Amino acid sequence: MSKTKGRLTLPSQANFLKETKELIERWGADAIRDSDGTKLDEATKQLDAKIYTTYFVARNHNEFAEKHMEECQQIYVMSKFHLATSSELEIPFMDGYFTDQVQPDYVHDEKLYWEVIDRTTGKVVSVENWVLDKERNIVTVHGAEAFHEYTVSFLVYAIWDPTQMYNHITNNWGNVPHDIPFDVRQPASNEYMQTYLKNWLKENPDTDVVRFTTFFYHFTLIFNQLGKEKFVDWFGYGASVSVAALEAFAKEKGYRLRAEDIVDEGYYNSTFRTPSKAYLDYIDFIQKFVATEAKKLVDLAHDAGKEAMMFLGDNWIGTEPYGKYFKEIGLDAVVGSVGGGATLRMISDIPHVKYTEGRFLPYFFPDVFREGNDPTIEANKNWLSARRAIMRNPVDRIGYGGYLSLAYQFPKFVDYIEQVTDEFREIYDVVKHTKPYVGLKVAILNAWGKLRTWQSHMVAHELPYKQIYSYLGIMEALSGASVDVQFISFEDILTTDILKDVDVIINAGDAGTAFSGGDVWKNPELLTKIREFVYNGGGFVGVGEPTAVHHQGRYFQLADVLGVEREMGYSLSTDKYFTKELDTHFITEDIKDVRKIDFGEGMKNVYGLTENTEVLEFSNPKVSQEVEGIVMPANAEGKEFGEIHLAANPYGKGRGVYLAGLPYSPENTRLLLRALYYAAAKEQEFKKWYSSNLSVEVHAYPEKGLYAIVNNTNEAQETEVYDGHGNHETVIMNPSEIRWEHM
Amino acid sequence: MSKTKGRLTLPSQANFLKETKELIERWGADAIRDSDGTKLDEATKQLDAKIYTTYFVARNHNEFAEKHMEECQQIYVMSKFHLATSSELEIPFMDGYFTDQVQPDYVHDEKLYWEVIDRTTGKVVSVENWVLDKERNIVTVHGAEAFHEYTVSFLVYAIWDPTQMYNHITNNWGNVPHDIPFDVRQPASNEYMQTYLKNWLKENPDTDVVRFTTFFYHFTLIFNQLGKEKFVDWFGYGASVSVAALEAFAKEKGYRLRAEDIVDEGYYNSTFRTPSKAYLDYIDFIQKFVATEAKKLVDLAHDAGKEAMMFLGDNWIGTEPYGKYFKEIGLDAVVGSVGGGATLRMISDIPHVKYTEGRFLPYFFPDVFREGNDPTIEANKNWLSARRAIMRNPVDRIGYGGYLSLAYQFPKFVDYIEQVTDEFREIYDVVKHTKPYVGLKVAILNAWGKLRTWQSHMVAHELPYKQIYSYLGIMEALSGASVDVQFISFEDILTTDILKDVDVIINAGDAGTAFSGGDVWKNPELLTKIREFVYNGGGFVGVGEPTAVHHQGRYFQLADVLGVEREMGYSLSTDKYFTKELDTHFITEDIKDVRKIDFGEGMKNVYGLTENTEVLEFSNPKVSQEVEGIVMPANAEGKEFGEIHLAANPYGKGRGVYLAGLPYSPENTRLLLRALYYAAAKEQEFKKWYSSNLSVEVHAYPEKGLYAIVNNTNEAQETEVYDGHGNHETVIMNPSEIRWEHM
Repeated sequence: MSKTKGRLTLPSQANFLKETKELIERWGADAIRDSDGTKLDEATKQLDAKIYTTYFVARNHNEFAEKHMEECQQIYVMSKFHLATSSELEIPFMDGYFTDQVQPDYVHDEKLYWEVIDRTTGKVVSVENWVLDKERNIVTVHGAEAFHEYTVSFLVYAIWDPTQMYNHITNNWGNVPHDIPFDVRQPASNEYMQTYLKNWLKENPDTDVVRFTTFFYHFTLIFNQLGKEKFVDWFGYGASVSVAALEAFAKEKGYRLRAEDIVDEGYYNSTFRTPSKAYLDYIDFIQKFVATEAKKLVDLAHDAGKEAMMFLGDNWIGTEPYGKYFKEIGLDAVVGSVGGGATLRMISDIPHVKYTEGRFLPYFFPDVFREGNDPTIEANKNWLSARRAIMRNPVDRIGYGGYLSLAYQFPKFVDYIEQVTDEFREIYDVVKHTKPYVGLKVAILNAWGKLRTWQSHMVAHELPYKQIYSYLGIMEALSGASVDVQFISFEDILTTDILKDVDVIINAGDAGTAFSGGDVWKNPELLTKIREFVYNGGGFVGVGEPTAVHHQGRYFQLADVLGVEREMGYSLSTDKYFTKELDTHFITEDIKDVRKIDFGEGMKNVYGLTENTEVLEFSNPKVSQEVEGIVMPANAEGKEFGEIHLAANPYGKGRGVYLAGLPYSPENTRLLLRALYYAAAKEQEFKKWYSSNLSVEVHAYPEKGLYAIVNNTNEAQETEVYDGHGNHETVIMNPSEIRWEHM
Repeated sequence: MSKTKGRLTLPSQANFLKETKELIERWGADAIRDSDGTKLDEATKQLDAKIYTTYFVARNHNEFAEKHMEECQQIYVMSKFHLATSSELEIPFMDGYFTDQVQPDYVHDEKLYWEVIDRTTGKVVSVENWVLDKERNIVTVHGAEAFHEYTVSFLVYAIWDPTQMYNHITNNWGNVPHDIPFDVRQPASNEYMQTYLKNWLKENPDTDVVRFTTFFYHFTLIFNQLGKEKFVDWFGYGASVSVAALEAFAKEKGYRLRAEDIVDEGYYNSTFRTPSKAYLDYIDFIQKFVATEAKKLVDLAHDAGKEAMMFLGDNWIGTEPYGKYFKEIGLDAVVGSVGGGATLRMISDIPHVKYTEGRFLPYFFPDVFREGNDPTIEANKNWLSARRAIMRNPVDRIGYGGYLSLAYQFPKFVDYIEQVTDEFREIYDVVKHTKPYVGLKVAILNAWGKLRTWQSHMVAHELPYKQIYSYLGIMEALSGASVDVQFISFEDILTTDILKDVDVIINAGDAGTAFSGGDVWKNPELLTKIREFVYNGGGFVGVGEPTAVHHQGRYFQLADVLGVEREMGYSLSTDKYFTKELDTHFITEDIKDVRKIDFGEGMKNVYGLTENTEVLEFSNPKVSQEVEGIVMPANAEGKEFGEIHLAANPYGKGRGVYLAGLPYSPENTRLLLRALYYAAAKEQEFKKWYSSNLSVEVHAYPEKGLYAIVNNTNEAQETEVYDGHGNHETVIMNPSEIRWEHM
């Protein structure tokens, strides 16, 4: 590999010039950034590289904020449930909240903005029947129903920026002042954000790129009375709410929001909730406002001859890059953190910017860069998982963050990154601006569709949860596969002909969530359109509890397409005969022992619907889990005690496929791809630009006349590589090698 | 043990007089019965024993039935789901049915009694829009919506009794005629059933007990086109439906039933369905009719100087012994098959009869009584499990069935039964007609209440299913425990003060089923009454998905009482901190390793609701199930990936307890009892008439001044036995010994 330069952003810091120069050279950097806790010195700013400077819009300006506490940001929160045991109930509504972070809003009329709800009936308590004691932070309900539970939904002022709060508490920053977030919807704040930036732009002539971290509203992150995380939703619009916003909403949309529209029974419109119309209106309203205001700042940066880059995180609420107002912000670039293939694609697929940048792991912090630890291991894992996705659509730049001086102390790491950065540029030069070979067009169907492209099933950015890893594997697998992936909504199917350009639909998730769909599956039009699509040759792959809602004798509303149904207790009286696993099948061709497939959390009690169901895995996980001393029922091995985890089903010219779950692994990536090709009835297309060894993938770029063979592992691999006509030859790959070949 | 006599029914057969006499002597029998396939000869009938004679009312009379095919029984059935792909859809509605068993009813007006339903919308297709082709057994829908699914609900004639059909097919009876079931609601059949019985009573002077097997309508048992079981519901009223019944219902109840009221989306009102008002009206209607008609036959038997006994099974529909019309039948006795403690109690607790009889296992058939097999093993297992329940409330008699000649060939078995029968009589003499010591009053709460006493979660009589064994264990455990058990309905709580006499409520089942309760948990009055009950000192034990229905921010509606909630995906953003297992707790005091508790199928994603929740078991079953090559998420051992399977929670003066599941075992019996005592805040009462070794139980009979120490195992056991004041002493018990002691 020859030495190349560019497309790399390096963090630097004061008094580290010589080493910075050395690393610019070795890694081929063409940009330098500051980080949280580091500043660039003058000498560094004069190096031959673009300078990125971190910029906070709505926090880190306490000199302003402290004088304008009335323009502090707000949040709607809900008290705990409180049980009435008589007709009088006192609710200490702040119980469980962190008063360093939030304070009750005693400025605005509580009778207008707060709600007391009888959660046993769901009825709002009339405002005459409760009083607020501002001294004691107590709402007293009069005429309560004994043994009903009540909640108070109330507005608070958010007096501490959550990201700074997290860093402050985690790192014991002690007396460091708390960043107060202010609301640019308010006059003084709006004026300030512009004036300050104008001056700042003047005062920072060496800055080439203003790295907004980010704009106005933080994702919802609330701490509890112990100063620990209480609620975190990376998609949460909670901190964008305020009296001003509520009033503006009413004016713009023609109706008033209730507290409950935001508080949502305490679920706060988590991205897992099928969104209500009010909530969709609200996020539209916020996105539009944020785009308008952010554009003002971007324009100022442009006027000063600088680029505007947005960090995808922290105060990113309202900027959703796949949303309809994002384009209007006019950003030059977006930078985000890359955890693997799916998050890489989440960044690299962003439209309407000149370039995207991925911040790779590990962050140069002492937790990883400590004596005795090898940071190369995490870097290698991060790179190999992201590289798959880069082969499909690369970010335009990569970068690192933290203390460069720390990284510099690990020569092996420095060597490795030198290799990675060169490899990135090599790939980029071939892959960007050409369309890679695509075998299938896949649509992931959920309530959010395009808006949350590559963001399906995410709770907190990149954190795993028991309830999601069996679905996240689908995104990760697809992020580096030779298929086109788009995210579509139920609404898209209902109102457009979007399925015309789709080979296979995937619907994956737990029943009732926005990702499975919930009640939308009672809509005959939706069912009809999908059935027709599959009947005419399309594919439908369901994972977990696809199309699930109990209605008219079915729990999986597309059980007829999937060939499987889930036993929910009502049909135990019906015999289930379709339990015999097929000996061989296209989908399981690469699997030695179906009993070893990892379905993650799996799904219980799924059974074959008809004799046409192709049963590919049928077992009783409880039996394999048996431990000494636990007695299973006599016929635990028999049919009543097993369940299907993998099946396929013919449906007209198309097919349905069911998977109980799909955590990410190379094995499961292969399994999913086979399922997709089978569902689309395109098995004959499968072995094109294909590697028999599933640790190796092949990516072809027909316009360039090139294809790449990529070893995703750190071991040497032998594989049969298939070209676009099905011809194949044996190839031996070095550890993690990319080999470029002419077609 | 001294030799005793009585309370035992022996099967006999022709030409087996000498051996019958010997076994009468040795086993102390005082009654002899025929069985399916055996008849008693004259000499046997003259022995010094009551004679039971099996009697079929509504089948086994083909000489009548064949001449009155218009009075044949009927059933409402539903076709498979059929997909319309154009506006015209042909539905071969008999597809999947066994024409030897059922034939379409082409006598009555299909437009009046059949329904074609669009299952995609739930709408009934107008009768003008479909036609029936009786030649081809096809319903054609005109103007169908393409890609909607349709079903036909239709009436059939049932031309083969299901029990005989099962025996016929299983035993290859070839040319043996098919028993045709006739409907005593019809005039000729009703006349015939009485006339025939009158004659039969005259012709069978030696019969002392008419053993009705049973009355009129078989539980729902439908076979498929291959002559195999398609649908079985031991509680199903399917075969009681007919045009005549529907018309009589309309007259009596003042409204017409629709086909859908019976077909119920294809679930056929399984006992797991929360019953609709129409279905409750219907079973009331059938029970009333059956009681009235059965009484006629019982009266005839009485008039002839004979006793009337009913077999609890086969054609028992409408006779439910805990129902409100059962008393009116005037039966002398009920006999049923005993599989274990719960079924023993189901029989022995039956009110309004002079005596009950349990038919014990094994049945004397060649499957068990074959060379090389030891039938004593099954007999011993059956006896030990039933004996626990007998110690609480014995049946009045026990008996066996099948070929006595077979059993006679197994001397060890004959010896063992001699011992069992003596032991039964010994227990009976102490235990019957006295109230055993009771430590707690337990109420099992579901939609059926008293009507289905000891019949909770049953599908087919005594068959295990994956979805029920984790709940059936509760009944089995309680059947032999020193607690009072009653079965109560939601309606009971809403309309009576039944909780006044209850210490602990148990609600156990999967969400949405009649046993958990489904939508009833949205009823504020129900929640209020139970919360008040617990708050004032009562206990509430939830198993599986108790009180589950999504409503107002809660999935478990009594999450506040239970201290746990189930994560259904909406609240992933909320941190779950309450995961630390308590080191010691009253409930788990007898458990060495909580990780070894068998929760059966268990329940996923249950978490602690507040800091008050007493977490007793928290784990991630998936991790313990890990097999080589399957990679778990990095923090799989961390809190996000675990779940609670056992917890308790203080609530006012009372407590809630949560259990993920409770299959039957001695260990789980102890666990459940501790949970019940703890919930009722009666821990201090626990060690009264108590054995420290959980293989041994103590039953006390204060009125008799006696208590029994019972070794439930076939091994010797050492234990501390506690009296009613908490004094204890060490006792060594012989294998399966009962030891009687004076107080």
